[in-house]
Amino acid sequence: MNKTKYNPVTPEIVAELREILGDKYVIFDDAERLEPYSHDEVPNPRYAHMPDALVRPRTAEEISAIVKLANRCMVPITPRGAGSGLSGGAVPIHGGIVLLVDRMNKILDVDRDNMMVVVEPGVVTSEINDAVEEFGLFYAGYPMSLETCYIGGNVAENAGGGKAIKYGVTARYVLGVEVVTPAGEIIEMGGKLVKDVTGYNMVQLMVGSEGTLGIFTKITLKLLPAPRASVDMLCLFETPREAISAVPKLMTEGGVIPTTIEFMDRPSVQAACEYLNETIPYEQAGAMLLITVDGADVQQVEREYEAVGEQCLANGAIEVFVADNSTTSERIWSVRRNIAEAFSIVSPEQCNEDLVVPPAAIAELVDGMEKIAEKYGVAIPSYGHAGDGNLHTRIVKAPDWSMDRWEDTWPGILNELFELTASLGGRCSGEHGIGHKRKKYMPMFVSEGYIELLRSIKRAMDPNNILNPGKIFDV
Amino acid sequence: MNKTKYNPVTPEIVAELREILGDKYVIFDDAERLEPYSHDEVPNPRYAHMPDALVRPRTAEEISAIVKLANRCMVPITPRGAGSGLSGGAVPIHGGIVLLVDRMNKILDVDRDNMMVVVEPGVVTSEINDAVEEFGLFYAGYPMSLETCYIGGNVAENAGGGKAIKYGVTARYVLGVEVVTPAGEIIEMGGKLVKDVTGYNMVQLMVGSEGTLGIFTKITLKLLPAPRASVDMLCLFETPREAISAVPKLMTEGGVIPTTIEFMDRPSVQAACEYLNETIPYEQAGAMLLITVDGADVQQVEREYEAVGEQCLANGAIEVFVADNSTTSERIWSVRRNIAEAFSIVSPEQCNEDLVVPPAAIAELVDGMEKIAEKYGVAIPSYGHAGDGNLHTRIVKAPDWSMDRWEDTWPGILNELFELTASLGGRCSGEHGIGHKRKKYMPMFVSEGYIELLRSIKRAMDPNNILNPGKIFDV
Repeated sequence: MNKTKYNPVTPEIVAELREILGDKYVIFDDAERLEPYSHDEVPNPRYAHMPDALVRPRTAEEISAIVKLANRCMVPITPRGAGSGLSGGAVPIHGGIVLLVDRMNKILDVDRDNMMVVVEPGVVTSEINDAVEEFGLFYAGYPMSLETCYIGGNVAENAGGGKAIKYGVTARYVLGVEVVTPAGEIIEMGGKLVKDVTGYNMVQLMVGSEGTLGIFTKITLKLLPAPRASVDMLCLFETPREAISAVPKLMTEGGVIPTTIEFMDRPSVQAACEYLNETIPYEQAGAMLLITVDGADVQQVEREYEAVGEQCLANGAIEVFVADNSTTSERIWSVRRNIAEAFSIVSPEQCNEDLVVPPAAIAELVDGMEKIAEKYGVAIPSYGHAGDGNLHTRIVKAPDWSMDRWEDTWPGILNELFELTASLGGRCSGEHGIGHKRKKYMPMFVSEGYIELLRSIKRAMDPNNILNPGKIFDV
Repeated sequence: MNKTKYNPVTPEIVAELREILGDKYVIFDDAERLEPYSHDEVPNPRYAHMPDALVRPRTAEEISAIVKLANRCMVPITPRGAGSGLSGGAVPIHGGIVLLVDRMNKILDVDRDNMMVVVEPGVVTSEINDAVEEFGLFYAGYPMSLETCYIGGNVAENAGGGKAIKYGVTARYVLGVEVVTPAGEIIEMGGKLVKDVTGYNMVQLMVGSEGTLGIFTKITLKLLPAPRASVDMLCLFETPREAISAVPKLMTEGGVIPTTIEFMDRPSVQAACEYLNETIPYEQAGAMLLITVDGADVQQVEREYEAVGEQCLANGAIEVFVADNSTTSERIWSVRRNIAEAFSIVSPEQCNEDLVVPPAAIAELVDGMEKIAEKYGVAIPSYGHAGDGNLHTRIVKAPDWSMDRWEDTWPGILNELFELTASLGGRCSGEHGIGHKRKKYMPMFVSEGYIELLRSIKRAMDPNNILNPGKIFDV
């Protein structure tokens, strides 16, 4: 892509932005206040880029005016939610304007009869469940970072999470969106409808488009009756392979779809336990499955966890612990949730990935990763959503390696990891997105013809390439 | 659209088609054999149009060659499955080539460990469940016409059906497709992956695109563990409004998501009972709900149907019958399945629609329909998927009306019905598709800007407008 085609944000453009939004909501020429918007949660500074300006609109009409201005002046716009992404998706790699949706944070309509909720994109995801809980309802599409992320970002990235095996990912719950298009038009797509075939599925095209095809201004989400009972189980296995091999059996032999099947290998559990000062009995186990079952009542959940426990034991589990109270559940889940944080303290130099393969291929993936780790002499611990075939893997710099050696070596390790993943019919991202971090690896997983189709849609909807340019693919 | 831009199928083109497929699989210049491909299940001959030629390819490569030839010669191609559609979607309204997928009828891969199946587009939908049953699995996305329709058509139309309230529609189960694009390229999208964010959700853009963006050559579907118990209930109410009003309560108050909530008003039940010589006690009831609950075991299903029964009785049901054996279940379901057939015998002159509104608005829709029926002196019986807000409504010619009066009047009635639907936030099709039958009504339900986005995608992917032109919208 030709970077020079864009213009910088000039004081004249800033004056126009201030006219649209008021002075208070346009930040310009202030590196200190702009810096936080130069990166997301990807730690490596190579993926950061400073914006020229930050804008904080409150309405779809303001966003429309800003997008039209940007097209007129050829300035790129990068939409941004909470900045909790893991692919560089909200980073303004061509400079220009970062458009923050933090002021669009209203829950507009809790519609109990239709079991739906209409929200603005800047609502913190967990607030949705806080708002609908009193009606016995819940939003099932949330990711693990629900306490900090915004729903707009979840929809833009098609966020996954721990409950996808039973409840699906964000996409399943998005019934309608109001979008400002790359041309600055405000368009409604879908609505409070469970079925709707009036035209292409534009709603699902927008979900996961990483802010390249539109900016969400309203989102209609489907809710479900909240489960009335839930139990967590911790199942210990001798080896990762045994743990992983048990996963499809829970569903095919046990006839149960658990809410969650999280896999954690020993290095992951160990790191989190040491970080938390937790005493889960991980020493004896090479790997663990954290399994949740939920349902409409206690009896159903009891039968389900018995079936799951039986399948685990029949497939090589050393032991199965049932967390029958919320304190124990919280202890177990805390280990899972703190793995990423624990590893970032163990070694700040690492490469965090989001591999996904057909669920039954995950044992082969784990075996292959062990071989690659051994070959290069690095640690590649893994944990993640085993039921979905989605593993969060990290290549961790060996403590005795120089930075030069690390920088020279990790790209080759990553390449081998991706080759392995591709050979299993997998992809380089299950839920974190491509952004610009994984863009160059796309051709390892999808055909050039497929990428060219994506480009043709982007060109058709955004001829000036104004909205989040340089993400997923180059035009 | 300029109809003259297309060329007719010439003997030279037929010769090329025969070279690609062999003589046997190209039909040309034979009105009798071509006639069945001039219409789908829409009875009105105004929506029919003869093809110039019919082709029956066996492979993606053959389809690719045909599509490239069609682009070169500017001849339109209309893909066709079983022809069981209800929107004219498979009708070649600009003539040209009908491309029938009936020879692509193999189940390619039953993948038990991944709980997926890979099929060709010409597989009859019910055969999928026949093939996976022995593994304790089932495909949940099927529509009511599963015994005759093809899975390729289901995916092209995003078919719904009776189980959508619990299991969703076809789209939820499509994980991957191999597609021949409008340019004749063979492209893989998605795969055996539960999560995948490598690029826009092209799979879901293709699902429901009515054959205008590509021709499916392989489809990867997600399966679920088959429910091990199921019960049907017939709940009788005095009025349609009472029946309909009970529906959201089953979920919000009862905490149960039934598999099916079918609504049938008295005229619909009566027509089907008379047609079948069935003796369901409909006389006392103005409307009925046919409710199915299923689950992993008998106990769960028992608790669920008790909760559903309680909610129905608390919300005005006269009586609740539980069909605890397959003979009774089959009797009830037979009534539901034969309504359309029964009405087509009562009066062949009718206008069949597929209205969808937010589920909680369905009582208002039924009330409004009654008023419109009264105003014009026609019958507008309705039945359908109440839990989804999706009603199959038909405007039936009054027996004493002349054909002229009917032809003069029905368009105005339909218009009023659509205005009512739109005012409730609804759409003119929930699962049958737009095709060319409902194309002109699209602007009543969606904005011009939205339709223009659809057009821009169609133009980008099919610049010659070769694939199923004139469907959903005009370019």
